[in-house]
Amino acid sequence: MSSALNFSDIPSLRQKLGPLTGDIAPVTTPIMFKSPRCFHKPPAKSFQHRLSQEALSRGSATLKTAGTELNADVISLATGRPAPEYFPFLNMTLDFPQSSNFTEDDQNSSLSETIGKSDIKTNKASYDLAISLNYGYSAGSEQLIRFFTEHVDVVRNPPYSDWQCSLTAGTTSALDSVFRTLCNRGHYIMTEAYTYSAALEAARPFGIRSIGVQMDEEGMVPAHLDNLLSGWDVSERGASKPFLLYIIPTGQNPTGTTQSLQRRKDIYAVAEKHDLYIIEDEPYYFLQFQTQKTEVYANSDQPPRSDPKLVETFLNNLIPSYLSLDVSGRVLRLDSTSKILAPGLRCSWMTGSADIISRFLYLHDATIVSPSGLSQLALHTLLDGVWGHEGFVKWLLYLRDEYTQRRNITLESCSKYLPRNICSWSVPEAGMFHWIKVDWRVHSLAAAYSKADYVAGNIILKTEDRIYSTALKKGVLCCKGSAFRAGGVQGCEIYFRVTYATASLPQIEEAIARFGMAIKEEFEVGV
Amino acid sequence: MSSALNFSDIPSLRQKLGPLTGDIAPVTTPIMFKSPRCFHKPPAKSFQHRLSQEALSRGSATLKTAGTELNADVISLATGRPAPEYFPFLNMTLDFPQSSNFTEDDQNSSLSETIGKSDIKTNKASYDLAISLNYGYSAGSEQLIRFFTEHVDVVRNPPYSDWQCSLTAGTTSALDSVFRTLCNRGHYIMTEAYTYSAALEAARPFGIRSIGVQMDEEGMVPAHLDNLLSGWDVSERGASKPFLLYIIPTGQNPTGTTQSLQRRKDIYAVAEKHDLYIIEDEPYYFLQFQTQKTEVYANSDQPPRSDPKLVETFLNNLIPSYLSLDVSGRVLRLDSTSKILAPGLRCSWMTGSADIISRFLYLHDATIVSPSGLSQLALHTLLDGVWGHEGFVKWLLYLRDEYTQRRNITLESCSKYLPRNICSWSVPEAGMFHWIKVDWRVHSLAAAYSKADYVAGNIILKTEDRIYSTALKKGVLCCKGSAFRAGGVQGCEIYFRVTYATASLPQIEEAIARFGMAIKEEFEVGV
Repeated sequence: MSSALNFSDIPSLRQKLGPLTGDIAPVTTPIMFKSPRCFHKPPAKSFQHRLSQEALSRGSATLKTAGTELNADVISLATGRPAPEYFPFLNMTLDFPQSSNFTEDDQNSSLSETIGKSDIKTNKASYDLAISLNYGYSAGSEQLIRFFTEHVDVVRNPPYSDWQCSLTAGTTSALDSVFRTLCNRGHYIMTEAYTYSAALEAARPFGIRSIGVQMDEEGMVPAHLDNLLSGWDVSERGASKPFLLYIIPTGQNPTGTTQSLQRRKDIYAVAEKHDLYIIEDEPYYFLQFQTQKTEVYANSDQPPRSDPKLVETFLNNLIPSYLSLDVSGRVLRLDSTSKILAPGLRCSWMTGSADIISRFLYLHDATIVSPSGLSQLALHTLLDGVWGHEGFVKWLLYLRDEYTQRRNITLESCSKYLPRNICSWSVPEAGMFHWIKVDWRVHSLAAAYSKADYVAGNIILKTEDRIYSTALKKGVLCCKGSAFRAGGVQGCEIYFRVTYATASLPQIEEAIARFGMAIKEEFEVGV
Repeated sequence: MSSALNFSDIPSLRQKLGPLTGDIAPVTTPIMFKSPRCFHKPPAKSFQHRLSQEALSRGSATLKTAGTELNADVISLATGRPAPEYFPFLNMTLDFPQSSNFTEDDQNSSLSETIGKSDIKTNKASYDLAISLNYGYSAGSEQLIRFFTEHVDVVRNPPYSDWQCSLTAGTTSALDSVFRTLCNRGHYIMTEAYTYSAALEAARPFGIRSIGVQMDEEGMVPAHLDNLLSGWDVSERGASKPFLLYIIPTGQNPTGTTQSLQRRKDIYAVAEKHDLYIIEDEPYYFLQFQTQKTEVYANSDQPPRSDPKLVETFLNNLIPSYLSLDVSGRVLRLDSTSKILAPGLRCSWMTGSADIISRFLYLHDATIVSPSGLSQLALHTLLDGVWGHEGFVKWLLYLRDEYTQRRNITLESCSKYLPRNICSWSVPEAGMFHWIKVDWRVHSLAAAYSKADYVAGNIILKTEDRIYSTALKKGVLCCKGSAFRAGGVQGCEIYFRVTYATASLPQIEEAIARFGMAIKEEFEVGV
């Protein structure tokens, strides 16, 4: 076993490494920011045999390679990096909420940070506008990648040595990169039976087909995954046996299910058996609610935020990531800032084996180059400067509590306004989605459909569409469950996905009430 | 002929349109921001027959489509957009140089702008952090797209009606999107004989081959382009006749050549004849120097910046864009902020027919989503708020003068330090690159190479590498010309590309002096 690492160990690790240079040549690698314990672990397996035709044709960019020959005595006339004096941005000042108080009402306690153009040169800061506004490294700035590497080291502790972090230009962009790097035209990927529609839509234009794996209350069912793979018939399917597994283990979109630790271990075992590569998409990871299973403290009896064990207890009670179980290096974990900081940043991070991450860096050179420097600078100033690692986790804890309240209002409203003989649901243990099943069999019009409708499955889509439209007329917009259905999954049930992320608490109640009215009207129950 | 439009007409156009809503539903389209004169022009031709397999498989995103059903009376429980109260950014303040004075030394005259989280709601501003930090439209925020649409309307005046602007996440990302949208595996694209290496490297992993068209002092030679296409033999080439033309008309990278207006017209005529689609990559467009051909005023006798005709004269003396000649809508113009504002923004813009732009918007939904909201907000605050359209052009004029000075120092240093019997060059009329030809035939070691070396062309690469390495030892890093050579181009000459973008003026002189020493040492001239 490797020794434990805490956030309190970070300052001494940084001291050993020395200050960041801010140099334009990409000499710093994320590997430098990892703690010594990482290097005592076994290396990842190679997954080069999973690379796509496109990925295999990529190498490092010519102009970038030239830059590696630079040193202090050499004058570069090589790459067209504009001189920072031509950036018309002199200073950026950001006001942040303090980690001790996150309510917007009390802005007196906000913290203000100003970053100048040349703060590195004048030793005022470790990151500045001259660096962030110029061309960046394909993994992200060393300043921000250091923070996320430390975060992953402490919170995830991947059980192999050569893991690496890279920034992404948001998870949507990262998913596109995943398909380009790991799939060829005609490939199948495996997903939960109902999954994030944008992931399916991102794969389709590449000629990649999805195949949905059955789910239960804990998400994807490992036995079905195993059966699917063990029984794969290449000639019948017209495609090689799939190896890419796309999953959303926590607060799954759209079903709201969360995989237990045992479930994750069981799915990982199937992945080991069939040599799968796992894409772990986890935007809602830190929004794990205080249900009985993960209870830290009762809602009504929260310990003060000054509790010295607060951060540790919160982190220890989170269900581990696949990355933390990944002895082989077969997991690419996608973390997102969109749901926990702000979607407009378009700057998130991913973690995987150096072998695979390097392929994404080649791709970045030819596509995004790097995420926006202003987004990186804003994130770094907030996370590394103002909050620090513990402050960031306290923010996540605050958000978790806020979404718990939103989830609770949603559940209370559903109990109050939805007819239980028609609508049913499970309690979401994480995330921002609630998945409502509507029993079409009791719809008064069900009998009116023709036999052909039944056979073609049209009855589901037609009834779903009626309910959707009636709800919209009543003044509430929900998502149809059918939009999230993966390939090969028979749509025998009607579902609606509702999110409690956006609307205010009174609006959530009002919206669920309207949805209830729509259901009752459609089903002619007590109208 | 359509009536003239000036920057001074913009305020009244905006007044007619009314204020921007800041709504989350994407009801605003860039078409709304165009002046009435646009709609009296003929429409673009369709280029649907040029779309790739990937592009033809794309449609609009399900979750985005759902959003279009929203109105004020409807509560959305549909898309997981976090509430702005959960964005931990309260205010952003930026300090900019004023348009009357762009030197960094005089920061007393800088302008400071603060943007709050909810400035739209409180009518304090037309754009705020609540909007910019949330998910954005795939074309970019309505605030920034309005600015660029107006800019293009005034400066470019495309001769067809249904042109449209979209933001990009930088031109590198846009180029990747171009290849995905317009090329299939096995296609050829046509480029200048020497071209931007990153463009070639971006195309290659898609299985796209490049074919270089001969160049002269004015860039690509239209007759050679015509010959290439007229004589295209499908069976000999193993590929269909190419239709994608990638060109850098102004301050070409790496050769520094600039196409005259007549040259552009001649190439456009070939494009019409062979039904080509043109990618106009123009990062250096506004850096057109005051040579005899485009002289506005002598360097030593610059009119005061307060000259009321300054902006108009500057713009009128720029060689028109292909977009301004494009009667058919067969041009996609890529503008970049990297060389004129800051590369780290990763936020630029492109213009083409609505037909083609719509395909890029579908792609954005599944990839970048939109450029960073902070980059968009910073750009909007500077361009629309602080500078305005005329102030932006004054900044471009200032930059042009700065790069003129850099170009001049480079030329003076070359004249001073490089042996003219070995090195030769043309005067760059635009951009940031100088292209130096080195006559390998007079190299003292040329005779020592074997006949096989001559036949295989190794002599060029070997001599080029020797000079490159010797220059590096002397303390100057240049780019090898061979790195920029397109497919099918015989490398019979040695070139080096030097940029005057980055180094200080004294460094440029020192670096050229070192390069001269390296040449002299290699060629054993007066050492």
